[in-house]
Amino acid sequence: MSCIFCDIVAGKIPAEIVWRNEAAVAFLDHRPLFFGHVLLVPAQHIETLADLPVAQVGPFFQIVQKLERAVEQALGAEGTFIAVNNRVTQSVPHLHVHIVPRHKGDGLKGFFWPRRKYESDGEIEETAEKLRAALQQPQFPDATDTKLI
Amino acid sequence: MSCIFCDIVAGKIPAEIVWRNEAAVAFLDHRPLFFGHVLLVPAQHIETLADLPVAQVGPFFQIVQKLERAVEQALGAEGTFIAVNNRVTQSVPHLHVHIVPRHKGDGLKGFFWPRRKYESDGEIEETAEKLRAALQQPQFPDATDTKLI
Repeated sequence: MSCIFCDIVAGKIPAEIVWRNEAAVAFLDHRPLFFGHVLLVPAQHIETLADLPVAQVGPFFQIVQKLERAVEQALGAEGTFIAVNNRVTQSVPHLHVHIVPRHKGDGLKGFFWPRRKYESDGEIEETAEKLRAALQQPQFPDATDTKLI
Repeated sequence: MSCIFCDIVAGKIPAEIVWRNEAAVAFLDHRPLFFGHVLLVPAQHIETLADLPVAQVGPFFQIVQKLERAVEQALGAEGTFIAVNNRVTQSVPHLHVHIVPRHKGDGLKGFFWPRRKYESDGEIEETAEKLRAALQQPQFPDATDTKLI
């Protein structure tokens, strides 16, 4: 199966790579929301955030944090938008984190509007209860290292 | 300074909490993009992702991963949208990760359109060069544990 991000990692497709180590590669999205829009991908072909081995989650998001700071400084941004689309609205089925420089009044709208409303207390409680029940199942263990320091 | 998310963490403002440990709390956004839209916040008042101590990044995003899986299962979602707004479009200045269930054709558009275009190779190279230069500065060290396993 060919994957455009695997090809970028392997150097088979050119891209403006801004940072890499042996396990992750950051490059400019060629159709950016704003100039300086970076994508970070694991070097391995991993499809969604859920598929990233738990031991890799920390190192991977430490790179996201580093890129966030660097994007702000390098592009003189006032803020950033960090996002991951898993499966729906995911154009390439290889996990990628968007790190996008933001400025006040930059006109980026959308995802966060319109909001919906829970029509009743019962509706919000029922939704919460579904989630609590799911989170108590054995397939959602607390990783041994999920305790924040 | 009063902070609505600190008040939720402290139990001073009611919220539908779906998961918590001593360092992070997950609750339903009361104005969701879709029902089951969860916010994960650090218990401490930390403003942006850049401000999260590097040792906490891994444990925090392991919880995001766990919530992503649980949201998909509990809400029967086909995918998820994970996002952090840092400063711009950040309604509450307390770091919060959105974990939003998605379905194909759910009508959620926006942030990812319209895309821009780099008008020339020079323009994309110049942007990449700014980022590479920033990333080589001493304030962007590789954390000792940024190596993916």
